[in-house]
Amino acid sequence: MELGLTEELSRQRERARELTVRLVELLAEREKVVADIARLKAELGVPEFVPEVERELRAVALKRAVDLGIDQDLIRRVLTLILKSSVRAQENPSNSNRVTHMDLMRVAKRMERNGMEVVHMEVGEPTLGAPAAVARELSDAALRGYAFYGEAAGLPELRAAIAEDLMERFGVDVRPENVVVTQGGRLGVYLAMASILSVGEEVAVIDPSWPHYKQMADYLGCRSVIHKTSLEGAWVPDPAEMERLMSDATKLLVLNYPNNPTGVVIGEKLMREFVELAERAGAYLLSDEVYMDYSFGEHETALATNSERVVMLMSFSKSWGMTGYRIGYLVAPKEIADRATRIQGSLLTCVPEFVQVAALKALTDRETPKRYREHMRRGAEIICSHLDRMGARYVSPAGGMYVFPELPVEDATEFALKLLKDRGVAVAPGSVFGNYQRHVRLSISDSLEKVEKGMRAIGEELRAWQTVTDRGNPPVIG
Amino acid sequence: MELGLTEELSRQRERARELTVRLVELLAEREKVVADIARLKAELGVPEFVPEVERELRAVALKRAVDLGIDQDLIRRVLTLILKSSVRAQENPSNSNRVTHMDLMRVAKRMERNGMEVVHMEVGEPTLGAPAAVARELSDAALRGYAFYGEAAGLPELRAAIAEDLMERFGVDVRPENVVVTQGGRLGVYLAMASILSVGEEVAVIDPSWPHYKQMADYLGCRSVIHKTSLEGAWVPDPAEMERLMSDATKLLVLNYPNNPTGVVIGEKLMREFVELAERAGAYLLSDEVYMDYSFGEHETALATNSERVVMLMSFSKSWGMTGYRIGYLVAPKEIADRATRIQGSLLTCVPEFVQVAALKALTDRETPKRYREHMRRGAEIICSHLDRMGARYVSPAGGMYVFPELPVEDATEFALKLLKDRGVAVAPGSVFGNYQRHVRLSISDSLEKVEKGMRAIGEELRAWQTVTDRGNPPVIG
Repeated sequence: MELGLTEELSRQRERARELTVRLVELLAEREKVVADIARLKAELGVPEFVPEVERELRAVALKRAVDLGIDQDLIRRVLTLILKSSVRAQENPSNSNRVTHMDLMRVAKRMERNGMEVVHMEVGEPTLGAPAAVARELSDAALRGYAFYGEAAGLPELRAAIAEDLMERFGVDVRPENVVVTQGGRLGVYLAMASILSVGEEVAVIDPSWPHYKQMADYLGCRSVIHKTSLEGAWVPDPAEMERLMSDATKLLVLNYPNNPTGVVIGEKLMREFVELAERAGAYLLSDEVYMDYSFGEHETALATNSERVVMLMSFSKSWGMTGYRIGYLVAPKEIADRATRIQGSLLTCVPEFVQVAALKALTDRETPKRYREHMRRGAEIICSHLDRMGARYVSPAGGMYVFPELPVEDATEFALKLLKDRGVAVAPGSVFGNYQRHVRLSISDSLEKVEKGMRAIGEELRAWQTVTDRGNPPVIG
Repeated sequence: MELGLTEELSRQRERARELTVRLVELLAEREKVVADIARLKAELGVPEFVPEVERELRAVALKRAVDLGIDQDLIRRVLTLILKSSVRAQENPSNSNRVTHMDLMRVAKRMERNGMEVVHMEVGEPTLGAPAAVARELSDAALRGYAFYGEAAGLPELRAAIAEDLMERFGVDVRPENVVVTQGGRLGVYLAMASILSVGEEVAVIDPSWPHYKQMADYLGCRSVIHKTSLEGAWVPDPAEMERLMSDATKLLVLNYPNNPTGVVIGEKLMREFVELAERAGAYLLSDEVYMDYSFGEHETALATNSERVVMLMSFSKSWGMTGYRIGYLVAPKEIADRATRIQGSLLTCVPEFVQVAALKALTDRETPKRYREHMRRGAEIICSHLDRMGARYVSPAGGMYVFPELPVEDATEFALKLLKDRGVAVAPGSVFGNYQRHVRLSISDSLEKVEKGMRAIGEELRAWQTVTDRGNPPVIG
């Protein structure tokens, strides 16, 4: 009997081996077909990623999996691996070596080390920094004992204060157990995504957008589907268009209003439509509201929808100029908050408690966010009046700390590099935020004097640029 | 011509669809075979995961992939997905709900909130904390401008100071560009693994071990292969035995000396053998040396081997009692350091610079680490003398902050729970660190008075426990 079982085990192992080899052969065959498809698409000018085709393919494969009674999760993951590899095979290699705002920042820093003065309009950092009272709290707290291992979700008193603050400001019902204090907004995005998504699922993102959303999706083995908004459409997103792009694999929608980089906000109605879309799709909606205090009007929070599908992200970096403190928070349904807590605990144990005590101090200060908002509002006015004179097209921001104009240049990245080298003004190329080759993002990080100076330099560079371009392409004489 | 291409595209898409469905069918067939194998293994008492079988399977599949000229990375990933799913099908569900030291810590904290005094021997945290001068540096630095976005790899002056410190202490040639300041030791492990490993690869770990290594490997979609050391063998690892367990997928070996939880250290010769093993395998070796300053003799660093395959991890948590500061560092070959920097930058932007300035202050203080080492040495003596009286088996530690005895009990987890409830002493069950049901990890976190008190309580609980057990199982009368 024992021998029979042992023989049977060997036989089944042999069978598993055969099936695995056949699997490899099948994948190899599929790769060849995919390469052919890529070639045909290139010849026909068809886009690399056609959501309808992929959605149908997924549906067919998953249906077969259901019929055969096999774990759908496994199939979904394997599908994503092979579909991601398909799109990579079809990708335009020229995209990979584009210049980012981080590259520009590095060049800018090098220039500063060499003694040049640089106007920083490339990063989103309020340069006045945090209030001194917040800074002093760090050592006080550490000396009072807030310098040991702490709870992964954050100090109970900070979570309670955040819940109360949101309740007071927006009348929303947030409980401390829904709040997770995170090591900054970047990690907040990662934790939300890692808590919601599995390998092979999809994130719906609205372009132009902070590249971090797409990067984190990619890092987690997921794919981003992009709803591209336009300057002509005043950067207003369309839930119907987004729905068209989504598939059964889309488990998360990302909104970010006031928006980075456009400065656009959306109203209650549109917010509600996106939340309902997420609910219908059985997905979650991540609402990145880190610029809430820079809203020139009333801020519209996704939490007001009271949906069990909303995850809200906030940070102390912008409102209180605490970029270097690395602290933010998520407000999420209990199961997502718990998962985010477990992941953060596993990666970091906790956010340093003395930083959390400093954040608690910041929360009591409502003046600093107002001062910063006023700074951003005036900075945006300066930028816009200069842009008007340049004849640049843009949407006047309703919040945030950026303006995202289209400049009268063919390649804004080249322009940005020249602007930095010639005139010491750093701006972020539009291509960082999606397919926006003629745009730049102008940030109101520096003092208003420097913003003014930066805008004058941009005007000058633009005039010089156009002269050179005119020279390079002599006008056709009619 | 255009029409011909469009038809061809449709045809190839149809073909891709067919192949995808066949893939699903093949996976379903394979799952059935795997379920059969699991059943047979259970009946035969064969372990769930047999590394040799899986290694051979991988080798066969990858060889076929090479023959067919298909992307090996894709195959490796798909293999991991299906092999991980196989082991899950075969997994013993009883493993998942075991009690960890974190559960015990939560119970302990609840007891403390209810006014009970608890002796903490469950976590590895020097309770005296950080020097006041280090705490004061936080606010000073923040007010001096160290509170903005910084470089992802860390402050240049801290990286240089770390390199110099290692050079002075161990005579090793470390350059600042090889140093990455990390948001704590936990993140250091994650960053090292994420920089070295791809989904589907393997990490070789020596048990008993800090569970974080295996958890992070799992989190990254990798598998741990375990070289189990024993009390009888004085917890000394064997490179030959480890080599037997490794496969072509093994890309990382993890060492941790002075060891958590055993307190064992290894000498230069053994260290060199493991490094050579990693080199032969084309793998890296992660040497977690966060307990280096608690070595009762000279510390042996893996950096002394001068190998291009060594990644060393260190933290400020133990040496200076800076657990709540969340700061550590990796020393790694340039390409790994660069990758770790990119990942940390992406997740966190940077470690708060004021924390880095505080760490810079700590580095100049060589007295605090010595005081802590003396504390650990004396604490270990107290624990060992009590263990001798209890007749417990253990290896006397040569460093670190733990003793890992085998107690005369059947189930150390049950014992730990009862010990905490009855006598307010928290210890970590051995099962946290591997398959060690009769062991506990005793930590020297608290004051020596409390360690003494805790050990007396353990002795008493053990006597009571044995009486109950004797009662429960009446002696056979001959």
